[in-house]
Amino acid sequence: MDDIVYFEDMPIGESFDFGPLTVSREETIAFASEFDPQPFHLSDEAAATTHFGTLSASGWHTTALFMKMFVTEFQKHPGRQAASLGALGVDELRWLRPVRPGDTLRGTSVVVDKKISASRPDMGIVRNKVTIFNQKDQPVLSMIPIAMMRTRPA
Amino acid sequence: MDDIVYFEDMPIGESFDFGPLTVSREETIAFASEFDPQPFHLSDEAAATTHFGTLSASGWHTTALFMKMFVTEFQKHPGRQAASLGALGVDELRWLRPVRPGDTLRGTSVVVDKKISASRPDMGIVRNKVTIFNQKDQPVLSMIPIAMMRTRPA
Repeated sequence: MDDIVYFEDMPIGESFDFGPLTVSREETIAFASEFDPQPFHLSDEAAATTHFGTLSASGWHTTALFMKMFVTEFQKHPGRQAASLGALGVDELRWLRPVRPGDTLRGTSVVVDKKISASRPDMGIVRNKVTIFNQKDQPVLSMIPIAMMRTRPA
Repeated sequence: MDDIVYFEDMPIGESFDFGPLTVSREETIAFASEFDPQPFHLSDEAAATTHFGTLSASGWHTTALFMKMFVTEFQKHPGRQAASLGALGVDELRWLRPVRPGDTLRGTSVVVDKKISASRPDMGIVRNKVTIFNQKDQPVLSMIPIAMMRTRPA
């Protein structure tokens, strides 16, 4: 592994694209049945009585689909993967529009801030602005994951 | 429905408990296989080579399990459900400790801030501090979901 993408190698403004991925009705209902069984995530009939109008995916399904697209793309880049130390959390997660069965999602992640860890100089903290779009190029989700990355060995 | 819990009926400091829920190894691996197939979420063997040590759940599995516990409890309170208009998003999500197969999770949600929507006076915005604990009472996740609630009709 001689081309590890260390913390130092990710300039602010660098972007990383992922997807596409199409969400099926079956998956939408299966996820909601297991994790978010609110009626408007389970059937068009129940959704018709709410502001959603028709069936929409759980917001937590959308974040899981982000991770699926992101990891799928990330795993094509072993040099990035080798420097990753996971994520501390996420700031400013916003569900901007409903995700519907049949929607095709894609996303982009842009480095917006970075700093060396005060307690661990072998680690950097990178904030990325992630936006997920549907097939109409409308943003459906935005958030700022906070990733930990290895710094380049001295 | 004569006992709807409107925006006005949720004072700052009010708490809402949910869970418990035990996470199985099979579920942990199934979720990761579908949404977050990083090796340390798929087997103890792969996790042993990382700082995780043993198999841990995807952070997005933990948020989905939060929603499962929360909705399960919420649906026992039709008056609260009737006033709910969904969530705008989440601030300050932090994965504080790994969640392991066999862990039993529970959580609590406390109202920390509230205001009437500037654009929609029939709606209030409620910020809740959510903390998820494991069976050792160690926090594994914290976050601030931003919920939309109906205000009491004039």
